[in-house]
Amino acid sequence: MKLFRYRTPEGVRPGLIDAQGVARDLSGHVADVTSETLGASVLETLQTVDQSALPELTGPIDYAPCVGAIGKFLCIGLNYSDHAEEVGATPPEHPILFMKANSAIVGANDDVRLPRGSKASDWEVELGVVIGKAAKYVSVEEALDHVAGYCIVNDVSERDYQLHLTGQWTKGKSCDTFGPIGPWLVTADEVSDPQDLALSCDVNGTRMQTGNTNKMIFSVAEVISHLSQLMTLHPGDIIATGTPPGVGMGQKPEPVYLKDGDVMELEIQGLGKQRQVVRADD
Amino acid sequence: MKLFRYRTPEGVRPGLIDAQGVARDLSGHVADVTSETLGASVLETLQTVDQSALPELTGPIDYAPCVGAIGKFLCIGLNYSDHAEEVGATPPEHPILFMKANSAIVGANDDVRLPRGSKASDWEVELGVVIGKAAKYVSVEEALDHVAGYCIVNDVSERDYQLHLTGQWTKGKSCDTFGPIGPWLVTADEVSDPQDLALSCDVNGTRMQTGNTNKMIFSVAEVISHLSQLMTLHPGDIIATGTPPGVGMGQKPEPVYLKDGDVMELEIQGLGKQRQVVRADD
Repeated sequence: MKLFRYRTPEGVRPGLIDAQGVARDLSGHVADVTSETLGASVLETLQTVDQSALPELTGPIDYAPCVGAIGKFLCIGLNYSDHAEEVGATPPEHPILFMKANSAIVGANDDVRLPRGSKASDWEVELGVVIGKAAKYVSVEEALDHVAGYCIVNDVSERDYQLHLTGQWTKGKSCDTFGPIGPWLVTADEVSDPQDLALSCDVNGTRMQTGNTNKMIFSVAEVISHLSQLMTLHPGDIIATGTPPGVGMGQKPEPVYLKDGDVMELEIQGLGKQRQVVRADD
Repeated sequence: MKLFRYRTPEGVRPGLIDAQGVARDLSGHVADVTSETLGASVLETLQTVDQSALPELTGPIDYAPCVGAIGKFLCIGLNYSDHAEEVGATPPEHPILFMKANSAIVGANDDVRLPRGSKASDWEVELGVVIGKAAKYVSVEEALDHVAGYCIVNDVSERDYQLHLTGQWTKGKSCDTFGPIGPWLVTADEVSDPQDLALSCDVNGTRMQTGNTNKMIFSVAEVISHLSQLMTLHPGDIIATGTPPGVGMGQKPEPVYLKDGDVMELEIQGLGKQRQVVRADD
């Protein structure tokens, strides 16, 4: 199932894309897709819905973040072996964890706004994992049972703030609009192997990032198991699992960063596409 | 006003401590004290309440976190000049930011649980600042207008996870129960000068941390202004503003860490006291 949330003049409503690719409204069956409803078996409820009877949505869809009221936004750094090779880094011994502020989350096609004076904002296409069932001290073998589904994440990053503003990475990761998620939450049953998904990011029509989740140093299951030793992962928590090669910071002969008017287009196999226009705050 | 949230068999309810020190139930006037209600002028509503007419609470109060549904839990590192001197660190050029997971938040007197195998968990008494009005690109002069109030935070920290688990600090800061907040949210009008508050932490009856917020390298107003250049601070966001000298990691001749059965008692002038028993997960 491909679930989404969309904006209407009356507020955000849930929807789904049916097997024929038709977008339909779900608000007659589910109030919203949030950390709360994901934990309260909304997915099981939806399995019994007659999709063909749901109202069709016509016209363009204004996508809200694909999950609402997210509890925590966890991110894994340096998790692709080809990206590690590219930058000459030793693969880490454990998953590198940092956090993005929840207030950075926006819809898949919303504008990305550069903070005032930002000169080093960058793109990062990533596989997002949304937790569906609380996970604490889970093994690698059990880990995927705790996944509700997957989505695209653009882990937008201000490199100067991340690396040179006397702090931890979170400073450059948490700016408003730096966390587009969606367009869809694709339920886990539709993703046969999360470790074999092609992913890409284009900037202004030029392919910058190309990768496959088979290059992850720590698999989705290993990441979930590791994090669950440290803290409980709750329904609606989201984990961005790292980015493949081709970020702006790594371009030769010199880094390339986002500027007002740029367009980012991200895609992950089976999870849809994102498109963001970049706007600079003044 | 001293606001709190307390647990009853029917769920969490809001309360206040009146001018005579009597605890009273507020649920007839406010549904809850959360990020949502703080932003919707719950404080203004409460100014008009006749406190003496509120139901008195008798018996011990089971404190829930003093603010519910917190959006983000921001923390400032190395922000006391006497603590920086103690550890021989150069004062940072900008506030050092890291995040704690919201899922770490517990009530002021709840047990603190050590994760399985934890050998280096530590205490940190800190002044917590709760945002009451959205702040983006605010000046130092305007910053305190955005504060709803203050509370005690125990920024419990697993030093091995924080420093040696191949990650950013957040790994050691985000364990379940590692964020006791409260007991009260003391509204800003009752805190005449947030930069002149004595704070302390005792472990098993021995004074370990002693400090005063007048030793902060970056004042509350400077921290808020700085963070607001990076991201919007929303009502109900909480900022822990750093810890004074005396953490376990800094003890001589060798570090002292928390173990099952230890008791932490924290106090900040005007903001009440916290008391946590330490329990080790097995």
